[in-house]
Amino acid sequence: MKFACTQLSLIKALSTVNKAVSTRTTIPVLKGILLNIKDNRLYLTASDLDLSIETSIDVQAESEGSLVVNAKLFEDIIRKLPSAIVKIEEVGGKLLISCLGSEFSIVTLPAEEFPSIGMVNELNKVVISKDIFKELIKRTSFAASLDEKKGSLTGCSITFNNNVLEIAALDGFRLAVAKENFNGPDRKVIIPAKILNEINKILSENESNEISLILDEKKAEIFIDETRVIVRLLEGEFIKYKDIIPSEYKTRVIVSVAEIQSAIERASLFAKEGKNNLIKLEIKDGNIEITSRSEEGNVKENVSAEIEGEDLTIGFNSKYLIDVFKVVNDDEVAIEMGSAVSACLIKPISGDNYLYLVLPVRISAN
Amino acid sequence: MKFACTQLSLIKALSTVNKAVSTRTTIPVLKGILLNIKDNRLYLTASDLDLSIETSIDVQAESEGSLVVNAKLFEDIIRKLPSAIVKIEEVGGKLLISCLGSEFSIVTLPAEEFPSIGMVNELNKVVISKDIFKELIKRTSFAASLDEKKGSLTGCSITFNNNVLEIAALDGFRLAVAKENFNGPDRKVIIPAKILNEINKILSENESNEISLILDEKKAEIFIDETRVIVRLLEGEFIKYKDIIPSEYKTRVIVSVAEIQSAIERASLFAKEGKNNLIKLEIKDGNIEITSRSEEGNVKENVSAEIEGEDLTIGFNSKYLIDVFKVVNDDEVAIEMGSAVSACLIKPISGDNYLYLVLPVRISAN
Repeated sequence: MKFACTQLSLIKALSTVNKAVSTRTTIPVLKGILLNIKDNRLYLTASDLDLSIETSIDVQAESEGSLVVNAKLFEDIIRKLPSAIVKIEEVGGKLLISCLGSEFSIVTLPAEEFPSIGMVNELNKVVISKDIFKELIKRTSFAASLDEKKGSLTGCSITFNNNVLEIAALDGFRLAVAKENFNGPDRKVIIPAKILNEINKILSENESNEISLILDEKKAEIFIDETRVIVRLLEGEFIKYKDIIPSEYKTRVIVSVAEIQSAIERASLFAKEGKNNLIKLEIKDGNIEITSRSEEGNVKENVSAEIEGEDLTIGFNSKYLIDVFKVVNDDEVAIEMGSAVSACLIKPISGDNYLYLVLPVRISAN
Repeated sequence: MKFACTQLSLIKALSTVNKAVSTRTTIPVLKGILLNIKDNRLYLTASDLDLSIETSIDVQAESEGSLVVNAKLFEDIIRKLPSAIVKIEEVGGKLLISCLGSEFSIVTLPAEEFPSIGMVNELNKVVISKDIFKELIKRTSFAASLDEKKGSLTGCSITFNNNVLEIAALDGFRLAVAKENFNGPDRKVIIPAKILNEINKILSENESNEISLILDEKKAEIFIDETRVIVRLLEGEFIKYKDIIPSEYKTRVIVSVAEIQSAIERASLFAKEGKNNLIKLEIKDGNIEITSRSEEGNVKENVSAEIEGEDLTIGFNSKYLIDVFKVVNDDEVAIEMGSAVSACLIKPISGDNYLYLVLPVRISAN
């Protein structure tokens, strides 16, 4: 292996793949990046087995070859080099890196030890808008469970059905669903929510407007420009969440998202985690009164709202409401409730592009 | 106590004083801010006993009074309020805060429990340029010891002598000295370095170009606009650092700060803390060759330099050199060395505005 490229192009490729480098592993090769020179291109691959990323850049190659280098050391070196041509060569199992007055020699591992990320299966490739895919993830992934023991609840369900792409996540206390129209073959997979959040970061750093998506039996692949992202799917069945969405309500509120969000954020200053972050909403006379109290004091917030149906007093974990209002882009939303002990729905005033379900917290009678 | 002011002015004042709020204390009143209304001004004071900050803003006061509120809760509330008029009133030991649709009631503590920060002693007040004072701190405070057991070595020595203001810090391995001309009475104090760094942040946030400084027996006071900062001095004698500065050299190097800084930063990627961050400098033939090695690999850096006197091979803890080159603003510096085992000096090519002394690390003969 012997090649030359600019420091800048190498840094850019390294920042793309480094998100898949294992930081906690004890397996040395998973702390590494696979470098592979082929046809005047450098392919860089990192993998923590759940998430793998491969990207490539143009280089001037004198000879081909592949090896693994420690990702952190290699990136630290390249990042600190001046913005100039970097020459890289394998000599006797060591990687020599030179750039102007700097010469580095670092140890390598054989390419054969690196896990295979598999060939691309071009069948069933769907092209979708990057921004819409990102938005669907942002609107739902926060509702997945963070508890690793919860299996498929730590993932987002991604469904293509009748040309609708729907993403859903739930953790037992709340549910988030978002969807958009897309032409594509019917498929249904579960992807870990924390990996989807990583993917959102990768997509944000890329300027391309479109991505390609392949949903396989065991893995999902996302292609954006020169970068290929491979995710190991979560196994198991996803909860049939459509069955738990109430179809009727007794109280419906239309309210400004900005106003209720900031009122709840202020009220939550007194809502303690040990007490389920409890806030109380009293809905009547065109007004939502939000109250909370702790030993440090208490708060009363008033937000005007358009109210239809019965008056209602209902308690919530403020965190679950704030999470929803943070990702809703609309000026106003509809909140539908049945009683103080049944699930509350938050949805658009018209249409059904998103839907949130939040379970209330039981409040004492005082 | 009853007054009204804008949310913005209150936030600004709170961000100034909050740097003196104790975060680790178990004494409730030190987690608080003293609010005092007098002559249509609100005075805010915070103190962790070592550092105290007082500032004031104009308010519309209906009645005077003083009390203590929890700093974090009060600031969180004010920060989350809309940008509007905030009305604040004490009623029955509670502080009522109202702003548009929001009403808060928070517990308070009596003002009498708050530590007195003392009266201002206007004698010996010196007016100096904020930027120069900040620069002197930046150039020296990093060299103070972080080890709380080291007493006066955790502080910076501040000396006014013959109309020169000199700040110095040392930790047993390196020394930093910086000075500027100023008219003022002779004084000599020691201020904790970490508090000087806090003061630099406070000064950076203020737009005023001048500060006033009072160096008392037990405390230093700094005035900037409406803000008064009081620091408890460190007791004890500061080491007579002038005695340890060598007056002769055998090797003198003039080198670009940017070039040697980035070369040492790259070389230090292989310099391990367990091994004193060791890098080796070989100074000869108009070139400094910087090398370092670990089990991960090795590095060789070349920096051209103007060399006077004997060739020299010398080892350093790379961190100590990087710390110096980070704060030197000049394009080039002079490095003066006697031998591989005697202190090295880094200073301006001409003048004596700053001086750094760094002890070398003994290297094996290979």
